[in-house]
Amino acid sequence: MTTIYNFSAGPAVLPQEVLRQAQEELVDWHGSGMSVMEMSHRGKEFTGIIEAAEKNLRELLAVPANYKVLFLQGGATAQFAMIPMNLLSCKKEADYVMTGEWSKKAIAEARKYCTVNVVASSEDKNCTYVPEQSTWKTSPDAAYLHYTPNETIHGIEFNWVPQTGNVPLVADMSSTILSRGINVSDYALIYAGAQKNIGPAGLTIVIVREDLLGQALPFTPGLFDYKVQAENGSMLNTPPTYGIYMAGLVFEHLKKLGGIAAMEKMNIEKSRLLYDCIAQSQFYKSPVEASCRSRMNVPFTLQKPELDDEFLKQAKARGLVQLKGHRSVGGMRASIYNAMPIAGVQALVNFMKEFEAKS
Amino acid sequence: MTTIYNFSAGPAVLPQEVLRQAQEELVDWHGSGMSVMEMSHRGKEFTGIIEAAEKNLRELLAVPANYKVLFLQGGATAQFAMIPMNLLSCKKEADYVMTGEWSKKAIAEARKYCTVNVVASSEDKNCTYVPEQSTWKTSPDAAYLHYTPNETIHGIEFNWVPQTGNVPLVADMSSTILSRGINVSDYALIYAGAQKNIGPAGLTIVIVREDLLGQALPFTPGLFDYKVQAENGSMLNTPPTYGIYMAGLVFEHLKKLGGIAAMEKMNIEKSRLLYDCIAQSQFYKSPVEASCRSRMNVPFTLQKPELDDEFLKQAKARGLVQLKGHRSVGGMRASIYNAMPIAGVQALVNFMKEFEAKS
Repeated sequence: MTTIYNFSAGPAVLPQEVLRQAQEELVDWHGSGMSVMEMSHRGKEFTGIIEAAEKNLRELLAVPANYKVLFLQGGATAQFAMIPMNLLSCKKEADYVMTGEWSKKAIAEARKYCTVNVVASSEDKNCTYVPEQSTWKTSPDAAYLHYTPNETIHGIEFNWVPQTGNVPLVADMSSTILSRGINVSDYALIYAGAQKNIGPAGLTIVIVREDLLGQALPFTPGLFDYKVQAENGSMLNTPPTYGIYMAGLVFEHLKKLGGIAAMEKMNIEKSRLLYDCIAQSQFYKSPVEASCRSRMNVPFTLQKPELDDEFLKQAKARGLVQLKGHRSVGGMRASIYNAMPIAGVQALVNFMKEFEAKS
Repeated sequence: MTTIYNFSAGPAVLPQEVLRQAQEELVDWHGSGMSVMEMSHRGKEFTGIIEAAEKNLRELLAVPANYKVLFLQGGATAQFAMIPMNLLSCKKEADYVMTGEWSKKAIAEARKYCTVNVVASSEDKNCTYVPEQSTWKTSPDAAYLHYTPNETIHGIEFNWVPQTGNVPLVADMSSTILSRGINVSDYALIYAGAQKNIGPAGLTIVIVREDLLGQALPFTPGLFDYKVQAENGSMLNTPPTYGIYMAGLVFEHLKKLGGIAAMEKMNIEKSRLLYDCIAQSQFYKSPVEASCRSRMNVPFTLQKPELDDEFLKQAKARGLVQLKGHRSVGGMRASIYNAMPIAGVQALVNFMKEFEAKS
């Protein structure tokens, strides 16, 4: 059988070793006679699983002791509401940086709860660049500043961290978490849907500084209150147990591979391979400004868009799947998260060169 | 190896056949070269999975065409907030029946959003009975009436459906859905966390009459708006794809076994076996009034509570696990959902008789 390389933007490829371990343990976890899916979330087996997952995530990201790690549900979209509900406190406005589809959604949801101050926007150039911080119009009264370090659809990525002084910095890291080194203390709150670099869909990771807890607005559902979730060890109600188990396997796997530093090195190598192929070609083009091209999501267009379907068809025949670009950008998009092996990117580059030569 | 029978109240036992199929397909679903966990939720593979799941669930419960079936996240606890947010509309109060720990939690959350009229309560007798409807003090101005047809912790179950006239009837069926025949048209909204009779934790099923959609309060998060979710086919954002896949396998499995009628017959048989054992004994006692004993969750106490630990220890040695009762009720609790085979209940009954004889 052809090896399948899955370039989906999310849910996305998972490490083969992790999938094989999950398969082996699916019916009977560690001789317990139970699947992880069948375990009481309050039993000692699952308690061990969630505690190990948190410990390993803390280790991978060097999460300081004054930050809580929460395992929640609802994806980034739930966070779009939870963040204003929890962080506005007595303030009436918040700062948002608009750099793509995902910051746009975050902004639209926040507008239900406060005045949103869009401090900068790259919409003038179809979100193909990151506005320099010197141009941002921040508000001194903002409850927090929200940005999206990596835009999955537009393929832009910040390679710097905004400086916001005393204003808490909030980051949607859904498509970049665990792919490069970060300093957690630079942020007040980091969140990420699991389905790109962590595990299956239905799990959301939140890393939040403790002093920000306890100010939820009165109409905040209990499930959406970070403080309530933190006090209950992410078990106010039954958490997405199997997703947490899978995430835990991924964390262990990343540690074995050498942690974030090793992943970052590999991600630089993989993305360079692909961007170099695009740069050296007369046929493919990156719509994104060179200084802020994402290491995770690589959109590119064909010089002859009428060949898009043929490109996708031939790629699929080679086992290179899920390459169709998002409708708002067009062309192709290769998402090359941690779990995409370099062999997958090499296979894509080889195919791209062959396709170009024939076209 | 001893067969393990898992009496957990949830997450709970799943059908062995389903787990084995999931295991077989885990790394490579139907020759796609992908795990279901790795599939784009918008791709044709997963679209097929979610559509089949909905179709089979509709068939099992004979869901009328004017009801939407939603696959959501957040468990019953999310519904505790979503229901008032979506159904209050311009009304200021809602009726709740208080029959145990879960209705209590639903009431506490609803109080954030409206005046809760507790129309009846069985707290006077530690929630061991169902108050007759003739005693209920309903309000003509209630936006809806909420009740819990099966209380997982207290082990009581309604064997009748409240008559509420024009007031929409809302039911938390988390621990009874698919275990007995229901007439969906009797309800305005039915919801259920998946982790008891459906699949893994992290998935919630909502079945809601269409005419109730579109009245969400202004501060309702998009993710919590039934109308928005219905319009997006439960894919406003990435849904819990693997949970939906597992639920789909369970639905197919139930159809093969003969559907809800077959499950109900088996559940009557299983629960009778256990309740008869308790009734015939001088040693075990059901705290629940005979007329409303749950077919799904069977709490029982030992005449000598000092033997509780020994009972649990010996049961565990026999492969009978997760029998410890909830702290608010004490004693034991055997949850015998659809996926618990009759052999498991028989093994428990045999053990109980032996334990009694020795004590």
